[in-house]
Amino acid sequence: MNWREKLSNITSLNNSLLCVGLDTDVGKIPKFLLETSKNPLFDFNKAIIDATKDLVCAYKLNMAFYETAGKKGNDALEKTIQYIPHNILIVLDGKRNDIGNTAQKYAQSLFDTLKADAITINPYLGKDGVSPFLEYTDKCSFILCRTSNPSAGDFQDLLVSSTPVYQIVAKKIREWDANKNCGAVVGATYPEELKTVRTILGDEIPILIPGIGKQGGDIEKTVRNGANARGEMALINSSREIIFASEQQDFAEQSRKKAEWLRNHINKYR
Amino acid sequence: MNWREKLSNITSLNNSLLCVGLDTDVGKIPKFLLETSKNPLFDFNKAIIDATKDLVCAYKLNMAFYETAGKKGNDALEKTIQYIPHNILIVLDGKRNDIGNTAQKYAQSLFDTLKADAITINPYLGKDGVSPFLEYTDKCSFILCRTSNPSAGDFQDLLVSSTPVYQIVAKKIREWDANKNCGAVVGATYPEELKTVRTILGDEIPILIPGIGKQGGDIEKTVRNGANARGEMALINSSREIIFASEQQDFAEQSRKKAEWLRNHINKYR
Repeated sequence: MNWREKLSNITSLNNSLLCVGLDTDVGKIPKFLLETSKNPLFDFNKAIIDATKDLVCAYKLNMAFYETAGKKGNDALEKTIQYIPHNILIVLDGKRNDIGNTAQKYAQSLFDTLKADAITINPYLGKDGVSPFLEYTDKCSFILCRTSNPSAGDFQDLLVSSTPVYQIVAKKIREWDANKNCGAVVGATYPEELKTVRTILGDEIPILIPGIGKQGGDIEKTVRNGANARGEMALINSSREIIFASEQQDFAEQSRKKAEWLRNHINKYR
Repeated sequence: MNWREKLSNITSLNNSLLCVGLDTDVGKIPKFLLETSKNPLFDFNKAIIDATKDLVCAYKLNMAFYETAGKKGNDALEKTIQYIPHNILIVLDGKRNDIGNTAQKYAQSLFDTLKADAITINPYLGKDGVSPFLEYTDKCSFILCRTSNPSAGDFQDLLVSSTPVYQIVAKKIREWDANKNCGAVVGATYPEELKTVRTILGDEIPILIPGIGKQGGDIEKTVRNGANARGEMALINSSREIIFASEQQDFAEQSRKKAEWLRNHINKYR
């Protein structure tokens, strides 16, 4: 199924713009899991997915947390992707980027081998570094635009004839959207920039929005500025605040409570 | 051993600025290896390393080619890193980038788990996305500055008060070099930009230079513009032209010939 249809269906079914980030840090998952499970990263994810799958539109797996755990991490990544219900969007967040012939390999790895529905990529290399990903017309590529971190502005806010670089990137994203499979990444920590990017992108390009929760992004502004006129096409991500809600036996239940609160809180402003 | 000492020693010992890129594409290695070897990616790399280890200052492994081969690829990557002689610099080319707490995971994965001496990273997120890598003071982080691909200029050449973005990145690299462990990536396909970046960086920051060979970069200009005043601190990379010199039984021997010619040709202009 095309990513857009999948996102649209699950957004309606679960009445949700919430994307749960499975940033499964082996140093932060409940200690008892490390003692009782042979594959604690996967078992942790499985419990979180079981507890939240009726509340989300997407799961986002940040690849750094799996790579750093070596073979066991890659194994947990693959098993998790297989375990996520087929009607929920899977975003692999690797921020990959390279010249054309190499970008094509990353695209193959993420979409063909790992079966992602959507990915994140970095635009610094320009169009021919992005094109190999966009050739996968049934998949979505979220291109970094204005990131959520404190020094995002170092290069993204540089002014080019009065226009900040991130806005030029946003305009390029709209231009590159010929196959209707581009998305943008904009941090919730910068609500005004989010509003500007939504205006540039129009209503049909999705925005993946990290920065809610630990990073401090405001929920109301995020929804009002990031969603389109129909209150859709925003994937509002929370990772640590949801998945590490508790270190006790009831960790999954506590995650569900956080996710449910956030899903509903987001919906207030749609 | 600190990366700088290692690079300096091997540059002298092998009288070489040549970095061989092990972009080991399973679709391009000799067919007979796929039939005779249980681990063709590793066996291919092993043969190339055996044939070229007295001619290079570094090997660069582009992670995309290993990731796309799944578990077998990751296994070949790890085995290759173990196999490379300890006095040769190992560059893991993944162009990773993320916000601080996640960048720290990538740094851990590349430097601690995979034992790279040097890596490539993408600067789009600004200083706090780069800092976790720079905390590894005995390792080198090559930051993308002006890439070798045709559309590199889409964002890297945007003018900010008459200064192109890639020059602003070069200035930041110099500023971020407090621990003497920054490097820059500049494509050989843009010799004038390479010259400008060398001037900005001074003599002690290394430049990793892809774009020789298939991509068409001129060797003389690359050496004259990219090396420092002592004819050092440039890692001139060639991948496909060397490692895929032949598909026959003598592929490693043919690779050696190409590598030897290139090493010597580079040295003419140092």
